[in-house]
Amino acid sequence: MRVATYASHSALQILKGAKDEGLETVAFGNPRVKPLYTRYFPVADYFIGGTYPEEELLEFDAVVIPTGSFVAHLGIELVEKMRVPYYGNKEVLKWESDRNLERKWLERAKLHLPRVYEDPDDIEGPVIVKPFGAGGGKGYFLAKSPGDFWKKAERLGIRDKEDLGRVQIQEYVLGVPVYPHYFYSKLNRELELMSIDRRYESNADAIGRIPAKEQLDLEINTNYTVVGNIPLVLRESLLIDIIEAGERTVKAAEELMGGLWGPFCLEGVFTEELDFVVFEISARIVAGTNPFVHGSPYSWLRYDEPVSTGRRIAMELMQGLEEDRLDEILT
Amino acid sequence: MRVATYASHSALQILKGAKDEGLETVAFGNPRVKPLYTRYFPVADYFIGGTYPEEELLEFDAVVIPTGSFVAHLGIELVEKMRVPYYGNKEVLKWESDRNLERKWLERAKLHLPRVYEDPDDIEGPVIVKPFGAGGGKGYFLAKSPGDFWKKAERLGIRDKEDLGRVQIQEYVLGVPVYPHYFYSKLNRELELMSIDRRYESNADAIGRIPAKEQLDLEINTNYTVVGNIPLVLRESLLIDIIEAGERTVKAAEELMGGLWGPFCLEGVFTEELDFVVFEISARIVAGTNPFVHGSPYSWLRYDEPVSTGRRIAMELMQGLEEDRLDEILT
Amino acid sequence: MRVATYASHSALQILKGAKDEGLETVAFGNPRVKPLYTRYFPVADYFIGGTYPEEELLEFDAVVIPTGSFVAHLGIELVEKMRVPYYGNKEVLKWESDRNLERKWLERAKLHLPRVYEDPDDIEGPVIVKPFGAGGGKGYFLAKSPGDFWKKAERLGIRDKEDLGRVQIQEYVLGVPVYPHYFYSKLNRELELMSIDRRYESNADAIGRIPAKEQLDLEINTNYTVVGNIPLVLRESLLIDIIEAGERTVKAAEELMGGLWGPFCLEGVFTEELDFVVFEISARIVAGTNPFVHGSPYSWLRYDEPVSTGRRIAMELMQGLEEDRLDEILT
Repeated sequence: MRVATYASHSALQILKGAKDEGLETVAFGNPRVKPLYTRYFPVADYFIGGTYPEEELLEFDAVVIPTGSFVAHLGIELVEKMRVPYYGNKEVLKWESDRNLERKWLERAKLHLPRVYEDPDDIEGPVIVKPFGAGGGKGYFLAKSPGDFWKKAERLGIRDKEDLGRVQIQEYVLGVPVYPHYFYSKLNRELELMSIDRRYESNADAIGRIPAKEQLDLEINTNYTVVGNIPLVLRESLLIDIIEAGERTVKAAEELMGGLWGPFCLEGVFTEELDFVVFEISARIVAGTNPFVHGSPYSWLRYDEPVSTGRRIAMELMQGLEEDRLDEILT
Repeated sequence: MRVATYASHSALQILKGAKDEGLETVAFGNPRVKPLYTRYFPVADYFIGGTYPEEELLEFDAVVIPTGSFVAHLGIELVEKMRVPYYGNKEVLKWESDRNLERKWLERAKLHLPRVYEDPDDIEGPVIVKPFGAGGGKGYFLAKSPGDFWKKAERLGIRDKEDLGRVQIQEYVLGVPVYPHYFYSKLNRELELMSIDRRYESNADAIGRIPAKEQLDLEINTNYTVVGNIPLVLRESLLIDIIEAGERTVKAAEELMGGLWGPFCLEGVFTEELDFVVFEISARIVAGTNPFVHGSPYSWLRYDEPVSTGRRIAMELMQGLEEDRLDEILT
Repeated sequence: MRVATYASHSALQILKGAKDEGLETVAFGNPRVKPLYTRYFPVADYFIGGTYPEEELLEFDAVVIPTGSFVAHLGIELVEKMRVPYYGNKEVLKWESDRNLERKWLERAKLHLPRVYEDPDDIEGPVIVKPFGAGGGKGYFLAKSPGDFWKKAERLGIRDKEDLGRVQIQEYVLGVPVYPHYFYSKLNRELELMSIDRRYESNADAIGRIPAKEQLDLEINTNYTVVGNIPLVLRESLLIDIIEAGERTVKAAEELMGGLWGPFCLEGVFTEELDFVVFEISARIVAGTNPFVHGSPYSWLRYDEPVSTGRRIAMELMQGLEEDRLDEILT
């Protein structure tokens, strides 16, 4: 067994974690990035060009660890048909990518969700508008009324209600972004809190450095393109809420789609009343785990050795191999 | 001897640090959080329900490590009467909780303090208003004039000067928040700089991500509820100022209240002129040390092994035990 | 051979790194800070008072590791004449300190640069104005038009075009600050990405916490005085761009000035279009490496042991010593 992943997103960490567990590693993707994974950071034992070189991966006896980049580049339909073993439950893909199914899942998990507007003419408070399939938050915008929505949506080519299928309109909940990273071990039936980050977004995290007066002069619009990640710890009294939210999410997934295992992330904000309001779920490893290559404050508490989410995945694969239970976690 | 603490705030780090030093650990508090300390993060050897289960703690031969949550839940009067040994100087409690005594202490230490207004009608520049006993900065607000103060104070039920005892009105000093974490070893008579953080506050750290124009539309008020902590290092040329401020704070405490030992934190901002203006002292471990479970840039410099503030406390207890000097540090 | 540096900036890390490699260390500088380097953080085996105690350093068989503080305090002319061996290429100093030469260098490296205005009356969009030789960003200001420029420049005593030599006027590019830290090993002819940070600036990182309405009332001006640094990781798909930018910068330096080796930093922002726009180069260790005393996410990927930039320098010196090639890297 070799550990393979698409050369982007969190591949450095995934491949490093696999090597730490004694596994050989394969990166595949754009040949331009080969030096990143083999020379600058020598974490890939092999590099293969191509978005998904199926035959080579089969020959390598590879297990693919999915990331957001992999799923985005290959597309859900092709992922579902993959012949190379895949770590995780592929059933999750359609629940996560369909806004209605995703909401059904998160509501079943009793998470606090922002109101979603089907009709922009119902908008009665601040909203954030998210184009579907937008990578890295590009194109998100704020609006405060129906008129404001239509004016700004026009920039995305949305001119009438028939175009609304391309965006989601959510209540804008004022709070600080917090992204807890979970790992659910299907083999041990245990949830773990691996780490927490906040994203670093352009230009959303730049505009606050400009005085209000000058912002008004410059007529600045907000954008939420993810540029990086900043490590964070959460107020300790909030951890149990976050963990219970994760447990309910796993339980709901077992009821609805045959389970959710491996890494996942609830993406939300904490309001000033200390409510955790969840906007989205990422049902696989998120790039927010990247600050923690050498472990996080939370993984050090549990493991007392450097365990990244990438390494935790490899630990699970090794356990599956040793207990002859890989079939339970690969699909 | 076992190390015990209230199950919240920075207990994970305190208990982990004690175990690293070979001590057995006890967490006590709300039974709901028991899994956090025993299963998700197995740092407590024992968990006891209750805010302060005195008899059980005595039977366990426990030493209590106080945190802000413990003192807030139990109340200063009860803490002062505790029969279970307490790490630190209980005399500090009243100096820290009385705004006049606290100011006397910090002035004796020659720290730069913001002006405090006794009478809101004297306000002649921006102020920040802090309700006493507000957990996590909830209810803080800014005001820029007497009229502005009275208007906003009404939301807290403050309508005339008789209600002013419930709030502190401080000059608002514009600067970036910096929280240096100190440890004073009474056994070695040495001050140490353990780590530095900044808080992550809702909604104060959220509003800057909203363009000024939309902020004005939405009529946003600020709140300073602590949600988490972000690790920080300080410009190296400022470290000696910070350390000397800590030394003077310990010296003033020796003159005024029989000493300050163990962890403490000076909470302030650095202005653009690089003045460190101090708002408050926390005379015990602060949650800002939580990012540093596996050591901070500063503790790695000194110890060359992973020393959190929690572990540093346990090291002091072990030294007291070995040198038969526990009576010098427990009260 | 002993490793020496000026006692400020990133000296703690440099000296700690040297000790980790088994070298003796010397700090020199203001006697007031001696305890910082010998007692609070015992990283200097010797401390010598003075900005550049040449005779003592020669006697100690010292190699000086330059930092921004050292160069600023001693002055470029004196650095160029130093008799104590200096790690790095002194030819770089004049290219870095002359705005025209610096630009020529960065343009040769095909980096994205902001437009520079020679004449403020040409300003046709937001600009940032930087006084030369301003430590820590003090005195920087934003302007949006020629009139706005002249009004604000007057505060710095700039009243007509003859005074313009004292400032640089750059296009203000809206994006989040990102500072990648590189190390170029001249001995191995290899570029390494060591770590990434963002600066923590007063008051630029404070004003966003004040609601727009109150900012307008308070008439706040921005300042960019560096107070500290916050660790960061970059979106993984951007790493190859950053690394290639570093490679081109080294190559251009080889063509123009005989090379650039050791640590350096490209200081820029990422825009919402994910362009990395570079404002300046620091051709030596930057203080942004200070969060990574125990290694960064990137150096852990490469080395699998705690390698700070300071330690990486010491590793290079040790290799030079062992291979009898110190003359290639000292000037």
